[in-house]
Amino acid sequence: MEITFLGTGSGMPSKNRNVSSLALKMLQERDEVWLFDCGEATQHQIMKTTIKPRKIAKIFITHMHGDHVLGLPGLLSSRSFQDGESAVELYGPPSLKEFVETSLKTTGTHLNYPLIFKPIAEGIIYQDQDIKVSAKKLQHGMPSYAYKIEEADKIGPLLPERLKKLGVSPGPIYETIKNQPTTVLPNGTEVHRNDVTGPDIPGRRIAICGDTKPVESLAQWVQGVDVLIHEATFMEADEQLANDYSHSTAADATRLAKKAQVNYLLMNHISSRYQQDLLEDEQTRLKDIFSPLQFVEDFMEFTVK
Amino acid sequence: MEITFLGTGSGMPSKNRNVSSLALKMLQERDEVWLFDCGEATQHQIMKTTIKPRKIAKIFITHMHGDHVLGLPGLLSSRSFQDGESAVELYGPPSLKEFVETSLKTTGTHLNYPLIFKPIAEGIIYQDQDIKVSAKKLQHGMPSYAYKIEEADKIGPLLPERLKKLGVSPGPIYETIKNQPTTVLPNGTEVHRNDVTGPDIPGRRIAICGDTKPVESLAQWVQGVDVLIHEATFMEADEQLANDYSHSTAADATRLAKKAQVNYLLMNHISSRYQQDLLEDEQTRLKDIFSPLQFVEDFMEFTVK
Ligand SMILES: [Zn+2]
Ligand SMILES: [Zn+2]
Repeated sequence: MEITFLGTGSGMPSKNRNVSSLALKMLQERDEVWLFDCGEATQHQIMKTTIKPRKIAKIFITHMHGDHVLGLPGLLSSRSFQDGESAVELYGPPSLKEFVETSLKTTGTHLNYPLIFKPIAEGIIYQDQDIKVSAKKLQHGMPSYAYKIEEADKIGPLLPERLKKLGVSPGPIYETIKNQPTTVLPNGTEVHRNDVTGPDIPGRRIAICGDTKPVESLAQWVQGVDVLIHEATFMEADEQLANDYSHSTAADATRLAKKAQVNYLLMNHISSRYQQDLLEDEQTRLKDIFSPLQFVEDFMEFTVK
Repeated sequence: MEITFLGTGSGMPSKNRNVSSLALKMLQERDEVWLFDCGEATQHQIMKTTIKPRKIAKIFITHMHGDHVLGLPGLLSSRSFQDGESAVELYGPPSLKEFVETSLKTTGTHLNYPLIFKPIAEGIIYQDQDIKVSAKKLQHGMPSYAYKIEEADKIGPLLPERLKKLGVSPGPIYETIKNQPTTVLPNGTEVHRNDVTGPDIPGRRIAICGDTKPVESLAQWVQGVDVLIHEATFMEADEQLANDYSHSTAADATRLAKKAQVNYLLMNHISSRYQQDLLEDEQTRLKDIFSPLQFVEDFMEFTVK
């Protein structure tokens, strides 16, 4: 799982940062890319990466503000031009459907693949045997959501010593034993997987939050995630502005990360009013409160471990 | 009057060309910029020029295909952020209103200026004392229009010899005489402007065409314009493709320019399938049929004389 930040700015594009979007690449795991938010010119940003639009299988929209969705009609249309034939699932607030459908209809756009709308509410919004996605409502003046992506725990590694005691030698039988709860050996012995594997390997957990003012209950919901991606539209000195516009400061995000004991905090949605050196100072200061943390930039890559 | 090409590609953005848009800058004439088409990321392109979004007073959409309109909601929204307070008039096919209004509504966008929809049909769509804009229907599978921008003819220069004969000496009276049809001098003499000025100076005329297959009656409509801007999605070798998709070839545009005896042909909306050297060869070849002509590129500037 790798994350590519495609747009890390807020409100409107600037010379250094495009509006919001990030790609969660799961090419090894499921040969898919999932997109979170899709501001204008996200397809232009993707063109500068190795991401293939036809691999984008799901798109999650945190909220309907223009800097998070206006790139969607163009991206969907170009994906069709670029041989995208597999379905795309679109998760987001209910009005996402009206926006996308009207855009496609009025522009006479026909997609060569099915587009499936998945209006969201709080709770689990997608689940298969490998992964689960849940949503939690934030506070931003319009419905805004955080998404939590959780891999299923994996069966722990086989323990050769234990297997040897049961008379099992290395070979194809190892895979068989790992793939089912109980295996009956040719000699009639029952091997219970639980007895011959180490502890489960916990799946990775990522939380991607939409725009929001600080939300008391969020810490518990993102407790212990491997990566917390949170907006930091303003710096602490502009706390009043953050409050006025229902946004967070970098300090708010940092306090949340500390309280929730996450493994890594990545901050995006950064106002273009801040120069790079100011951001670096703020980052240094905040690392005294919680670490590791980082302001992200367009095209930054992050590997989730 | 200067033209800045903001997007000269077709269908979807490529590394070299963004999707359609061009700016007609009339800063000296009326302190306004008019935009023709507004594909996705037009606001990003504008950011790389000296054009100020708040100067954009009118936007003309040739047709509703996504590569010509999807940048509109973002541009309108950012113009509001960037202190745009004067009204914007939006000219285009009737469904433009539904697209823009739904986009603004579903994204919770409030503009700090009036947005005035001007659904178009064939004929004069705008006129004031200095300028006239007309529209003509093209053929493109969906309603597509050409726009013709015509400056009013200007009164010719005052002829000092003639004025001297009538006893008028140079001074502020010159302006008075030029500004009205008839001026009565202090001594009672009537001076008719027509008698003391040279021939009218013809206003400049520009035709900006939307996507279209060749249209027989277009030559007469653009007859003698100073600049004809026409699509050339395909090269002559791909005439069949042009026909299949209701587009023109560069040769079609060139034949039109020749027939209409325009002063300059600028070709845009060029498919990304063609490499630069192929375009240069085609351009050289077409110059034998009509000249001056040119394939345009993003950020190219053209002064209309
Ligand atoms: Zn927002
Ligand atoms: Zn078109």
